[in-house]
Amino acid sequence: MNKGRLEAFSDGVLAIIITVMVLELKVPAGENLDALLPMKSAFLAYVLSFVYVGIYWNNHHHLLQTVKQVSGAIMWANLHLLFWLSLLPVVTAWAGHHPRAAWPSAVYGVILLLAAVAYLILQRAIIRHGGGALAQMIGADLKGRLSPLLYVSGVGLSFVRPWLAELAYALVAVIWLVPDRRIERALAARG
Amino acid sequence: MNKGRLEAFSDGVLAIIITVMVLELKVPAGENLDALLPMKSAFLAYVLSFVYVGIYWNNHHHLLQTVKQVSGAIMWANLHLLFWLSLLPVVTAWAGHHPRAAWPSAVYGVILLLAAVAYLILQRAIIRHGGGALAQMIGADLKGRLSPLLYVSGVGLSFVRPWLAELAYALVAVIWLVPDRRIERALAARG
Amino acid sequence: MNKGRLEAFSDGVLAIIITVMVLELKVPAGENLDALLPMKSAFLAYVLSFVYVGIYWNNHHHLLQTVKQVSGAIMWANLHLLFWLSLLPVVTAWAGHHPRAAWPSAVYGVILLLAAVAYLILQRAIIRHGGGALAQMIGADLKGRLSPLLYVSGVGLSFVRPWLAELAYALVAVIWLVPDRRIERALAARG
Amino acid sequence: MNKGRLEAFSDGVLAIIITVMVLELKVPAGENLDALLPMKSAFLAYVLSFVYVGIYWNNHHHLLQTVKQVSGAIMWANLHLLFWLSLLPVVTAWAGHHPRAAWPSAVYGVILLLAAVAYLILQRAIIRHGGGALAQMIGADLKGRLSPLLYVSGVGLSFVRPWLAELAYALVAVIWLVPDRRIERALAARG
Repeated sequence: MNKGRLEAFSDGVLAIIITVMVLELKVPAGENLDALLPMKSAFLAYVLSFVYVGIYWNNHHHLLQTVKQVSGAIMWANLHLLFWLSLLPVVTAWAGHHPRAAWPSAVYGVILLLAAVAYLILQRAIIRHGGGALAQMIGADLKGRLSPLLYVSGVGLSFVRPWLAELAYALVAVIWLVPDRRIERALAARG
Repeated sequence: MNKGRLEAFSDGVLAIIITVMVLELKVPAGENLDALLPMKSAFLAYVLSFVYVGIYWNNHHHLLQTVKQVSGAIMWANLHLLFWLSLLPVVTAWAGHHPRAAWPSAVYGVILLLAAVAYLILQRAIIRHGGGALAQMIGADLKGRLSPLLYVSGVGLSFVRPWLAELAYALVAVIWLVPDRRIERALAARG
Repeated sequence: MNKGRLEAFSDGVLAIIITVMVLELKVPAGENLDALLPMKSAFLAYVLSFVYVGIYWNNHHHLLQTVKQVSGAIMWANLHLLFWLSLLPVVTAWAGHHPRAAWPSAVYGVILLLAAVAYLILQRAIIRHGGGALAQMIGADLKGRLSPLLYVSGVGLSFVRPWLAELAYALVAVIWLVPDRRIERALAARG
Repeated sequence: MNKGRLEAFSDGVLAIIITVMVLELKVPAGENLDALLPMKSAFLAYVLSFVYVGIYWNNHHHLLQTVKQVSGAIMWANLHLLFWLSLLPVVTAWAGHHPRAAWPSAVYGVILLLAAVAYLILQRAIIRHGGGALAQMIGADLKGRLSPLLYVSGVGLSFVRPWLAELAYALVAVIWLVPDRRIERALAARG
């Protein structure tokens, strides 16, 4: 099984997820600037989720560069990751429309957490399928370990102050925005 | 005619089908956990259909690996398969919103059955176009024969207990989740 | 400019058009078989448009096989074709919801006509850009000349009996379903 | 990092944006020609945005031809561009539904301006990443400097006469429709 179609399919799904989210930003009702005000939190939620899908696309890209052949386990681990990410548009819209409510913010965090877990499972599947190089590159994997903790904190904080939860989620995004140079450097070192 | 564009187009359509289904999961109305309860069966239907599209994508991938050149017949057999799969989002939403009704569950099964028949037609078209290797690989094709029977049972069971029908549909998915190693093994043996 | 991205982009747009149309098939309201009856004509319109997009994708595929390099004119002629095809989902839904009305059927025919004209313009642009081979292959181009006549007849018939118009549109589809062997044969002869 | 996936992902997102916009052209309510009248300005807005996405796709295509390797900065600059373009469907629908209102027209112009700025940032990122060739090709970059001025004028004119603003936006589109031969010529000269 070659990895070309896996990448193409994943790119397609991620491209659709990132674009479909914008459909939940309903066309403003009214023709004045006031009509945009109620969209403020939906817009912010859209920005955060857009960045998240971008991060996943970027890291997915890096991850698959270390793979030569795709096994059945990798393919299903990949679909599993896409499944949780496919729920982002719905939970983004829910959280965006209820910025001060606890549950939408908590469920948003749970979906992010499950996507992160799915990403780790995919990483494992690749390492088990002969990705010794990847195993070395990742090493201590501080980011990979820190993110779930921050998501869980976010879920908890949702019931205290939802905006604190959003801050935790945004913090994870910032941490990941710094590109994963470990893999890039390791690949360069080998090349 | 080369197969690259056929694969790309099919991947595109399947990626859109799998993502568009999530649009039928409407944003929950309300900000408490109760707002998620009415979505329970729609969510389960989404999961099942997501897995089905994943299975079709996976097997489509395997099937086309045995092809070198694409004939007009293969192209239309492929579009015919995509046609029935394109109806999945609508019937998934219908069945998901009426979990205890007979007809939505039966129609869901009929669409799955027609997609399975379309898949068999595509397989035939490939074998006729010189896919002798594929013919050998498939051999007795137990799964391919069992699935339609289970779909028909599911359609029948819809009128007894819809959840029994869902069980039958889920059973087919589980059978297919076990990857189609026949083709993988045969390809490896030849390689 | 290489043609790979032009094909990929066109495939993407066509894949989305073909899938987005299904979103206009609203989820049936009600849980009995009766709930499907009002969808009958919308479903037939969906089938017809699905076949049309399939035909365009197929012929687009053939057409571009004769191209090596893409000029600016080809690129814009291609976008022009995609523009009219992008309107298919809306006019399909309109015609499908008003099966006995004259205007929706006539406008549907006009969009088909404009797409056909755009296709001819794209063909010209390719021939002008050094597609001498294509010019020979197409020859008398009976189909290409017949289709616009049938579309115009369909538009006219919409005001007599809409179903006669649909028949004319379906007839064009049938004519084109017979694959365009001229190009295939000519390519084979050269190869 | 190779540029293949960056192109594929961008093509996917642009293909979806261009197609999703048509979903905002609601199916006409009514079966007479009158039912199309209220869609007039929404249709014109759709045409303008369609052309804009086509222009961005075309120039994006040219721009990336000068790149060999993709850095993290290029990837995020690219996503940043896609972000602003992803808002086009919403602002197109808003402006299309309120053709005589100042704010929708102004916000439409602001989004176009931000997309243009994002494009310039992407250009810079490519030049900084060793795109000396691109720097030469672009040279004085009259178009790139003129466009923002016209967008800003458009935003201002929205509060005088919205149709004057639309004219300014359409003018930028016309300027860009003339293909960017600088890069084509420079590439040909080097080849």
